[in-house]
Order: sequence, then C-alpha cells, then structure tokens
Amino acid sequence: MKYRLYAPGPTPVPEEVLTEMAKPIWHHRTPAFEKVIAEVREGLKWLFQTKEEVIIFAASGSGAMEASIVNTFSSGDRALVVDGGKFGERWWKICKAYGIEHDIIKVEWGHAVSPTEIEKRLKEKEYRGVFLQASETSTGVAHPVKEIAQIVKKFDKTLLVVDGITAVGVFPLPMDEWGIDILVSGSQKALQLPPGLAFAAVSQKAWAFVEKSNLPKFYFNFKTEKKNLEANTTAWTPAVSLIQGLRVVLKNMKADGLEKTFARHDRMARMIREAALAIGLKLFAPETPSNAITAVWGPEGMDAGKIVKYLRDDLNMTIAGGQEAAKGKIFRIGHLGYYDEMDMITVWSGVEMALMKMGFRFEHGRGVAKAMEIVNS
Amino acid sequence: MKYRLYAPGPTPVPEEVLTEMAKPIWHHRTPAFEKVIAEVREGLKWLFQTKEEVIIFAASGSGAMEASIVNTFSSGDRALVVDGGKFGERWWKICKAYGIEHDIIKVEWGHAVSPTEIEKRLKEKEYRGVFLQASETSTGVAHPVKEIAQIVKKFDKTLLVVDGITAVGVFPLPMDEWGIDILVSGSQKALQLPPGLAFAAVSQKAWAFVEKSNLPKFYFNFKTEKKNLEANTTAWTPAVSLIQGLRVVLKNMKADGLEKTFARHDRMARMIREAALAIGLKLFAPETPSNAITAVWGPEGMDAGKIVKYLRDDLNMTIAGGQEAAKGKIFRIGHLGYYDEMDMITVWSGVEMALMKMGFRFEHGRGVAKAMEIVNS
Repeated sequence: MKYRLYAPGPTPVPEEVLTEMAKPIWHHRTPAFEKVIAEVREGLKWLFQTKEEVIIFAASGSGAMEASIVNTFSSGDRALVVDGGKFGERWWKICKAYGIEHDIIKVEWGHAVSPTEIEKRLKEKEYRGVFLQASETSTGVAHPVKEIAQIVKKFDKTLLVVDGITAVGVFPLPMDEWGIDILVSGSQKALQLPPGLAFAAVSQKAWAFVEKSNLPKFYFNFKTEKKNLEANTTAWTPAVSLIQGLRVVLKNMKADGLEKTFARHDRMARMIREAALAIGLKLFAPETPSNAITAVWGPEGMDAGKIVKYLRDDLNMTIAGGQEAAKGKIFRIGHLGYYDEMDMITVWSGVEMALMKMGFRFEHGRGVAKAMEIVNS
Repeated sequence: MKYRLYAPGPTPVPEEVLTEMAKPIWHHRTPAFEKVIAEVREGLKWLFQTKEEVIIFAASGSGAMEASIVNTFSSGDRALVVDGGKFGERWWKICKAYGIEHDIIKVEWGHAVSPTEIEKRLKEKEYRGVFLQASETSTGVAHPVKEIAQIVKKFDKTLLVVDGITAVGVFPLPMDEWGIDILVSGSQKALQLPPGLAFAAVSQKAWAFVEKSNLPKFYFNFKTEKKNLEANTTAWTPAVSLIQGLRVVLKNMKADGLEKTFARHDRMARMIREAALAIGLKLFAPETPSNAITAVWGPEGMDAGKIVKYLRDDLNMTIAGGQEAAKGKIFRIGHLGYYDEMDMITVWSGVEMALMKMGFRFEHGRGVAKAMEIVNS
C-alpha cells in the first residue's frame, strides 16, 4: 500500500514543493536569496494577518515558543499559563527552565479555557504574559482566542502569546485585528513543509517588552532577527531549502486565498466529526473542536491504540493515538495542510476498516456516507 | 551560465541527496523513522570518531555552539575564548548573552593560537571551558586542536569545546583519541546538506559538567536529547527531510572512508593554495591553512571584492569576500563537502578570468596549470 500520513504534523508536502526544495542549493548571502526572503516576509505577514514582521528561525516550533518567553520576559516577571494538554504544559515547562514564576490554569483535557477565568486571574495579580494554544494538538480543542484577546488588551502590562502551531492557516487568527501580541507557528503543519522552520509574529505592544527584556538569549533573538529581516537576510544561516519551499507554499496559499483555505479546513473537520458521530463514536472535544485535528473516543471497552496500529500495520497510514491519560482512549486525525476532502474519505474508511476488524458493531460505511454528503452539500 | 557555489557553506548538495529529501515526508514517531535515526546515530559517531552520542538539533550551527555553553556551564563559571575571527567572536558573544565571565585570547586574523599561550592562561586562572574553532571560516586558519587538547586534558575542571562546523569531515579531529570534550558541527558544510541541522558530540568528561550545569535552557537541552536519541527519537519534532538526507550522506561518506575524504580535501586545498602562489598572490593564512577554505589576499592596490563581484555577475559563481577588517582585502574559496578536483580547476579559472578583467598582470593560466599538476602528481 502507498504510505499515507494523517498526523497533526508533520503533514504531507505538495509534490511541487518537494521538487522546489530538491533544486540545487543557493547561497544565502546573495541578491537572489534576498529576493526570496523579501517575498517570504510579505507572504508571512499576509498569512499571519499582520503588518508586523514575522520572525523566522531554523528550529522546530518549540524554539519559537521559547523565543516568545526569553525575548519578552525579565527576571521577576510572572506568567499565566493555560494548560489543557501536552502543548499547554510546554509553556510552563519553558517558564520553569528559565526560572519564571508562573500560575497555571489547569483545563480538563478535551475542554477549552474560560475567558472569564482568565479575566479573573488578571485582576488578581499582575502577569507579564498569558500563554495558550489556539489549537491544542493533544486534545483537538480550540481555545477562544478572540474573546481572550479582548480581555488581555485591557491590561497594558500583559501580553497575549498564542501558540498557533496547528492553527495558523487553518482557521482565522487575525493577529492585528484581534490584538494577539505574539503568534507562533511551525513549518510542518498548515504550511505544508517539512519540519525545521519556526515563526513568531510580534506586535508593537510586544516589541516594547522586547526592549526591556533581560532574560538570556542568543540563537533565539527577536531583535537581531528583525534587524536582519529588514535587510532581507537572517542572523544565522537560514534553512535555505525550506525557505525556498516556503516561498512556493505561500504563493499557492495566496492564490487560494485565506477564506477558501479556512473553508476547506472547516469542511474537512466537519467530515471527520460527523462521520465519527454517524457510527456512534463520541468526540473528545465536542463543544470546542479545532478544525486542525479531530480527537475521537474509541469504542467503549476497546483499546483505541489498536485503531492506530491497524492503520499503521495493515494500511500503511499514520494517524495519532492519545497521549498521557488519553493513551489508548482516543485516536486523533490531522486534517491541516495539504489535504482535501477525498483524503478525509480515505482516512475515515481506514478507521471504519479498523473498527470492523476489532469487532465494533456499527453500520458499515455510515461514516463514509456522512462525509460524502457533507462534500456534496 | 550554470550556477556554481564555492562558498564555505552552504555547500552543494549531491543530486542523490536532493532527490532523497524530495521523497514524501515521513512521520517522525514511527518505527520506520526510528530506524533512520538509529542509522544516523551510528553514522555520526563514525564521522565524529567517538563512542559518545552525537546530539542532533533542528537549528543552524550557532544553535549547537550556544548549546555547548548553556549545557555545561553554571553561573559564576569562567570561559577562555580564542578569538581569531568572526566565529571566535561568536563564542564570547554567547558567553556575554548568558552573563558568563570570559577572558579572550585575541589572535591576529590569519594566524593560529599558540598552545603555550593557552597553557599559560589555564595555569593562571580556573576556566570551566576553552572555546575555539578547529577551522576559522573568516580567515581560513586551522587552530592546533591536537596540541591544545593535550594541554586541556591535564585540567580536570576544564572542558575543550571545539567548533568543528567547517572542520568535521574535512580533516582529522578524532574526538575520543585527542580528548576533545565537545565537538560541534552543522549540516551545510562537509555534510553536504542544506542548512538546518546542528550537531554536538559530548565526551564523558563533559557529561559530568552537564549534570551540574545550572544555566537556563529548554530547546537546546543535551540531557533531554540524549535520552530521546537512545530511544531513536528526538525531543522536539526533528527536521525530518534533512535527517533522511543525512542518512544517505553518511552512508556515502562511509563507503568512501575518512582517509580518502580527508585526502581529497587536502588535495583540493593544495590546488587552490598553490595556484594562488603560482600567479603571485599571497595566502592570508600561510602558516596554518585550513583544508576547508582558502583565504587569498587580492593583488596589492586592488579591491578583492571585485573578484567576488565579477564571479557573481559574469560567471554566476559564488565565492566569499573578506569580512570586517579583511573586507575588500581578501577573497575566500570554500572547498569542503561535495567538491572534487575538477571543481577546483573551474573556480580557479574563474578567479584568473576576474584578475584578467581587473588588469592584474600575471602569466595567464599559470595557476590553473599548477592545480592540474597537483591532480596528476
């Protein structure tokens, strides 16, 4: 069987981008490559819906998360972290590594944080930043970024830092309009590239924090990178081939337009969610699902890990299982990036085939039928 | 004209590796990719000539330089830095960013550090680490790592940290045999890959320092990465496509063998050096040249930048000019990685053509002839 990848990242890379990156390597300190950087800068601003510079690092997404803290915080500052999954956890682990005092709003896996809870906390204590995920990959939850931004905006001394690694390019996060202060992403998600690039868009409000920040940093330095980007270059040797690919991806995304891109993701997400419900499975995040990834409870009394394993061993497909407490309980399908509706039908068919093998009783094909109906509607 | 790249990095990527990296992306948490990591781990140990684990980061080389400091130093520790060029500078700039006390041995550009000077300094004060380049890319100098290692070995509380970014895979640096404690490299040099991977091999002596280190770190964490590598995975999402390419590069390098690889680099370096001398130019680092890169003084009274510019604009070739004080004074040819002897003849012909255009008087073709004689000898 052909290999098929439906994980929440890395996601498939379009053939056109693979061949672009397979072209002979360019030197990065050349007028030709400066033109590529210039084009990529504009494209990223368009994608992040901001007038501000989008910083580019050769790193995976976690590097840009770390950068968001070490470039804006100073010793003694306090962070408010929303922890509703593996990636929420990562925010406070970074705080801990840098000795940053932090309070955690622990959110039950599968649920979104309440904006009023954040407002309450911000009124109680001064926080230098509120950290959360737009889309929490481990649970398939979308947190209410827009509502939270309206709250944080009222606090001059507080930044809103959003991990958009599995959200930017999937659903609307208009950074400038909503007032997100730092919006982070990575290359291997909706950006349809291999892993190796991390991004951070930084608001005017955040740049003022950057000026005062005294945490140690070297490789992940916003100011140095901004200065270099303004001259269409980067402080350190950039991941040249990935940036060449990024240029093509952004050009193609622009041709499609954001609205159409968001609508495609919305449709794919609905296909998977409705298919799951149609055969009697339950969604892990029914109230606030992310359009990037759908987490589904396995059938009661059955090991959901077996679905993942069957897809891997018998169908040569990668989907994701549950992590930590959700291990063996849920399975997760990624539908962000270079996917279309027919891909959703394929992966869902795989899931139904796994469930048949496992002896789960359901009307065979009912989920697939539901998915097809959504495409036709 | 075809594009030809003779910079000290990025260097050309073999066609076989470009197509390998253009294959559809794999998911990193799969048994298939774990096999790739297992193969790459063995290959890196072979290349770095060590029994120890070679840590892999998604980053450019500077990331691994930073990692070498933040993972081994504690607050209050003092560093001894050899600064004989742009990259020597980088070591103390990292120290500065992390508030590490450091003394600098300033070495005149084009010259190597004296091991006796290092021994003298180590006897005067306690240093937690000695930092230098095996090959200083800005000057084309090779520092005497073997002799320095013999000295540092005698100091239990001091590590020898070597930036081998333009040295590993070019000339011998047998880490375990010589007693190098941390040996750093990057993907876009002798490893014939695009930029985006950084490496750090860590000795037993250094791991003991890692255990005690209290500098803040998160993304660049040796301990976390080591633990993950031992399970054939990485802490953060790895740069999957580059690692796929690395597997092929290491396989091919192994088939050639280290001895033959070092001999090829030595021969290419001699071709360029002898060609320059044959037409009356002077070498920037005549006593201690690196086999990775040759820096040559431009003709007296002429702007060496014009050679670089002529190659770029008329011949579509990239070589490097001088940096900082050496700007306009020297030009630099990279000959590390995927190059052979005929490439050296091509690039040197380009240089001679530039010199003709600029009106430098020399016996046309004398340098090329010298280079050919070396191949035939």
